[in-house]
Amino acid sequence: MTLPRSPLAPSGFPALPPVAGVRVATRACTIRYHGRPDVCLIELAPGTAAAGVLTRSLTASAPVLWCRRALKGGRARAIVVNAGNANAFTGRAGEEAVRHVVAATAERLGCRPREVLVASTGVIGEPLAYERLIAGLDDLTASLADDRWAAAAEAIMTTDTFPKGASRRAEIAGVPVTLNGIAKGSGMIAPDMATMLSFVVTDAKLPAATLQALLRRGVEDSFNAITVDGDTSTSDTVLLCATGQTRHRRVRGPADPALKDFRAALFDLLRDLAQQIVRDGEGAQKFVTIHVTGAASKRAARRIGLTIGNSPLVKTAIAGADPNWGRIVMAVGKAGEKADRDRLAIRIGGVDVARDGQAVPDYDEAPVARHMKGREIVIEVDVGVGRGRATVWTCDLTHGYIDINADYRS
Amino acid sequence: MTLPRSPLAPSGFPALPPVAGVRVATRACTIRYHGRPDVCLIELAPGTAAAGVLTRSLTASAPVLWCRRALKGGRARAIVVNAGNANAFTGRAGEEAVRHVVAATAERLGCRPREVLVASTGVIGEPLAYERLIAGLDDLTASLADDRWAAAAEAIMTTDTFPKGASRRAEIAGVPVTLNGIAKGSGMIAPDMATMLSFVVTDAKLPAATLQALLRRGVEDSFNAITVDGDTSTSDTVLLCATGQTRHRRVRGPADPALKDFRAALFDLLRDLAQQIVRDGEGAQKFVTIHVTGAASKRAARRIGLTIGNSPLVKTAIAGADPNWGRIVMAVGKAGEKADRDRLAIRIGGVDVARDGQAVPDYDEAPVARHMKGREIVIEVDVGVGRGRATVWTCDLTHGYIDINADYRS
Repeated sequence: MTLPRSPLAPSGFPALPPVAGVRVATRACTIRYHGRPDVCLIELAPGTAAAGVLTRSLTASAPVLWCRRALKGGRARAIVVNAGNANAFTGRAGEEAVRHVVAATAERLGCRPREVLVASTGVIGEPLAYERLIAGLDDLTASLADDRWAAAAEAIMTTDTFPKGASRRAEIAGVPVTLNGIAKGSGMIAPDMATMLSFVVTDAKLPAATLQALLRRGVEDSFNAITVDGDTSTSDTVLLCATGQTRHRRVRGPADPALKDFRAALFDLLRDLAQQIVRDGEGAQKFVTIHVTGAASKRAARRIGLTIGNSPLVKTAIAGADPNWGRIVMAVGKAGEKADRDRLAIRIGGVDVARDGQAVPDYDEAPVARHMKGREIVIEVDVGVGRGRATVWTCDLTHGYIDINADYRS
Repeated sequence: MTLPRSPLAPSGFPALPPVAGVRVATRACTIRYHGRPDVCLIELAPGTAAAGVLTRSLTASAPVLWCRRALKGGRARAIVVNAGNANAFTGRAGEEAVRHVVAATAERLGCRPREVLVASTGVIGEPLAYERLIAGLDDLTASLADDRWAAAAEAIMTTDTFPKGASRRAEIAGVPVTLNGIAKGSGMIAPDMATMLSFVVTDAKLPAATLQALLRRGVEDSFNAITVDGDTSTSDTVLLCATGQTRHRRVRGPADPALKDFRAALFDLLRDLAQQIVRDGEGAQKFVTIHVTGAASKRAARRIGLTIGNSPLVKTAIAGADPNWGRIVMAVGKAGEKADRDRLAIRIGGVDVARDGQAVPDYDEAPVARHMKGREIVIEVDVGVGRGRATVWTCDLTHGYIDINADYRS
């Protein structure tokens, strides 16, 4: 099934400049798809530090289990990604497949196996045709280049309708560094983690522990603040690698003031990629921003926001351009977090529709109706108990979602 | 919008015999709907004991808040139900509306206000036209009869496509008693409570505390074991009333052995009504039974079952008749309960499709495909860690759900 490009997609793939110490190649290995690149190799210079945040699923895929172990070393020389097969629920054969891929890649790059990270996305429960991937490795290593980011973002797509990438510049102690990131994901998107793959690289020189701390924080307000369908995959993987090719003064841990600009750029890039995933939500016709304020804590605010963002009734109402705030009230009520029914307030598109636990009498429906018919929906909810706030992004639930998911394998 | 009768509906409304001490009336009060009965009055004989299980939503409706207080008395002389308006998120005006309805009903029946229970279902956030309900009370009380159960089940419908009722006979210490129940609900169905209204009456003589204990247990394996869309309403209400018109020996608490038959009949009736709600799930084309075994506890098993039953990806796969057990693995993984990835087993329609954490090699797909094309789908999942087991019922997620919910208010 070929899907039309999401109406919420950005106008095109952004310009991603080279990042010193990073080269990329893609190839059609026919893992599952025919006639399109489906494997991506990211080569990282010797000395690259690596960090990762991985799915908390108890049925995690073989590549996730491998990354969990390999990341303990804090080093990476390569990331090998394939689309079309998730290598999940494949038992011992799945782990064998990972070992073969990792060994073959390490041999070609002259590194240790644990410096090769892997990620797979696609169908669950089918054996991975890893021999085809390995057969393509010579060609992949021969075609590595520093300007293949758009191709890389395309090679890792499954039901995605557009490639996702972002780049940022930042300074560390006065020295400019670059961050590039690519991502994939459109279904099975929910927090812990948003179901997706994302790979971010930089030429900054940062130790693995610092990268890990920054990534964990950055993921909170990006990939863990989005939802498409509330489903969490077995394969969620975000990796952050720093080649250290840029000469800036040594950084003392994640709280070093010299990292202020870098941190802001990283978080902004992660949020950008996360929002692109929502904009490619399966069947999505509207991009929805949900601001929750007045909650008992930030965590409570996010949970309320995600409950609203996951509610099929809220999402179908948005699909129908219906400002049905009653369903938002319902979702707040079921989130299980403190809320004051008699102080609850809701704004849609900047218009107060409910205040002090009741509909605003005779509010002007016309601007709200206009807003609901647009592509970008903004919902603000104040639950009236505290100062916790969070923002969550989601999309509407449409016939397109059913079309895609009732017929994915056939 | 008039919806066609669900393809999963039973062939017709069952025969509900009279229950001594109970009379029912319905009337078109034009609360919201035109040209159909939308109010139901259930009159209960003096001395009737009452129990209830109500939504845990933190934004509960005014009728729910009233019932919470009134049920402390453990007595009921009437239940007044309206469809079309939930009287939820209506602030103080909503509580006023309840007080007026309760006072007017109590006056006509010669009882205290707290002996009048109320329930409302329909749109949230709009003022309830309670004057129209009260204007119909004289007519309602004048037309009370003991054989109006089908009409009552119809009067409380909203997006339901068929009226839901069930009856059982049981013996208490050798004396026959009758149980009748009606229910409504098709969207916003999820546990704690399944979003719905249900009213069960019996001529047995049981104190309120015993009724409450029996109801709470019975709800666990019925209304709390179903899900349509994971959404929980502000109005969920199940009431159980016993008129005490049958002379059997006095019962000593819920554990009295004399209640064995009655308990079984009550639980069976509650399960029947709960399953009817799933069979009327918005847009449902398939009725899905999910048996979970091998979990750490019964609670864990139910949570895993509900996570599978709530997954949009599982539900759309079922809609597409796709035996995509990979999505079941995904759902097990995200449930947050213990599961042994390498011992996980899945059966669909009685056929082993996965065992020991892998696809069963070369299993016969033909019978599974046939099963998936049918109306009644059975999924068995063993998570391989303990002895906890539970059964959960749900339906598929189809275009019909989107049609109904993207256009409910218009």
